[in-house]
Amino acid sequence: MKPTTLINGLPADSVSVQDRGLAYGDGVFRTLRVAHGKPLHWQAHHAKLVDDCAALGLDTPSFALLDAELAQLARQHPDCVVKIIVTRGVGERGYASPPSAIPTRILIAAPLPVYPADFFDVGVTVQVCVLRLAHQPRLAGVKHLNRLENVLARQEWSDPAIAEGLLLDAKGNVISGVMSNLLMLKGDTLHTPDLSRCGVAGVTRQRIMSLASGLGLSLASGNYSLDFLRDADEVWLCNSVIGVWRVAELAAELAAQHPRRWPESALFPRLRKLLHDLDP
Amino acid sequence: MKPTTLINGLPADSVSVQDRGLAYGDGVFRTLRVAHGKPLHWQAHHAKLVDDCAALGLDTPSFALLDAELAQLARQHPDCVVKIIVTRGVGERGYASPPSAIPTRILIAAPLPVYPADFFDVGVTVQVCVLRLAHQPRLAGVKHLNRLENVLARQEWSDPAIAEGLLLDAKGNVISGVMSNLLMLKGDTLHTPDLSRCGVAGVTRQRIMSLASGLGLSLASGNYSLDFLRDADEVWLCNSVIGVWRVAELAAELAAQHPRRWPESALFPRLRKLLHDLDP
Repeated sequence: MKPTTLINGLPADSVSVQDRGLAYGDGVFRTLRVAHGKPLHWQAHHAKLVDDCAALGLDTPSFALLDAELAQLARQHPDCVVKIIVTRGVGERGYASPPSAIPTRILIAAPLPVYPADFFDVGVTVQVCVLRLAHQPRLAGVKHLNRLENVLARQEWSDPAIAEGLLLDAKGNVISGVMSNLLMLKGDTLHTPDLSRCGVAGVTRQRIMSLASGLGLSLASGNYSLDFLRDADEVWLCNSVIGVWRVAELAAELAAQHPRRWPESALFPRLRKLLHDLDP
Repeated sequence: MKPTTLINGLPADSVSVQDRGLAYGDGVFRTLRVAHGKPLHWQAHHAKLVDDCAALGLDTPSFALLDAELAQLARQHPDCVVKIIVTRGVGERGYASPPSAIPTRILIAAPLPVYPADFFDVGVTVQVCVLRLAHQPRLAGVKHLNRLENVLARQEWSDPAIAEGLLLDAKGNVISGVMSNLLMLKGDTLHTPDLSRCGVAGVTRQRIMSLASGLGLSLASGNYSLDFLRDADEVWLCNSVIGVWRVAELAAELAAQHPRRWPESALFPRLRKLLHDLDP
């Protein structure tokens, strides 16, 4: 399929060169799956969109408006990935937010990415990125359009056997994957990195956290080192497109190191099933 | 005048919705003045564009190519501001930089902004922004398209009497204005904040630094607190559009404080004249 795009409700494939989304990355986005013609977890995604728009002082397009546009795309492409972008809209030169700007809303339906079946069935190999995430509490957690850190981190590898890069912050805390959130199981506790200074707090991460008690797990959040991760019983990566992957191997950072490998897990298939069953 | 735009050399006013400049802020930009049909300090701007593109792993459009396109805009608008944007170009969904992407180059000619004459003649009033710049050494100094910090900082005031906001980093070091670079004079030394962890190293800042010795000043760069700035003999703000402004007043941060006011300066008019005379 070729990507199909609606801009402010109309079929279009380009935006004004004066859109502040381009000029400053002044906007936010969501990525969600459409399966069998239905956008998955759309209410949770819209709630997150409202929060993220609020962080930038943007008006969020209404649920009803976006819902109708999503439905239009889903009819054309019953199984796809939809990216929703909301920018501050067209503005003149200069950082000041134009008070009368009308947010631009963009919906792009694109094909589902194709990953090796092993990524889902056996687990993935990840490596630690050199780039360190900066602490910016004002933007932390928000999925905004300023994503150069992710772009630069993603440039660090081209080996298709590496499914994802792990991002640490400037203090050495593990935060997330480049395109995914991170969860670490240790005993009966599911640990998620604190995302109040950097990182993106994704919808699938939140869904997994809400499933934890049903799996007999308690939740913890905080600052975790790479040693903590290496020492974890299981490491999971999630986002709205992949669902959840189990990390099977962490590539060695230094030649002297051994890669850390995690054996098959009894719990992980249960989590995946639970997560999948809840896809309406 | 209405903005006039060339995209990849052709008149156009929109970019592909799949341009990575929009998706991730994956690109850089320059803002320069055109006066009497001539782009000012264009060689220095192109050199900075080369550096900034290299920081993101982007190919820079050649001097000759951009020069010809600038000349085309300058014939139409002999006195204007030109913004040059270079993005990674169109790419599919996902952070990985497409190896075959062709950078998008965008030139936008816009009217010169109108500032009160007092800003140039008497000096400006500035206030300290609450937002603190994050430390990201990989992006520091580079004028990239990830400018949400500047956007959020610029939202902090709407009083037109405030010409600019001062940005500090998370450690409390003064770094720059929201849209300008900062220089502080103390005795015979011109101090410029270290920009290796945040901020943008602009062309006009560099020009002023190279003029310092002609004004009998030595140069220093480092970490400076707000107290150091308040204690400076003079504070200057510069960019390629405004040239240089003298800070006449720093608004009090706390009700208990007094604003810091700087009296007229003997040196500043000399600097302005020198900077202006060197505009070819």
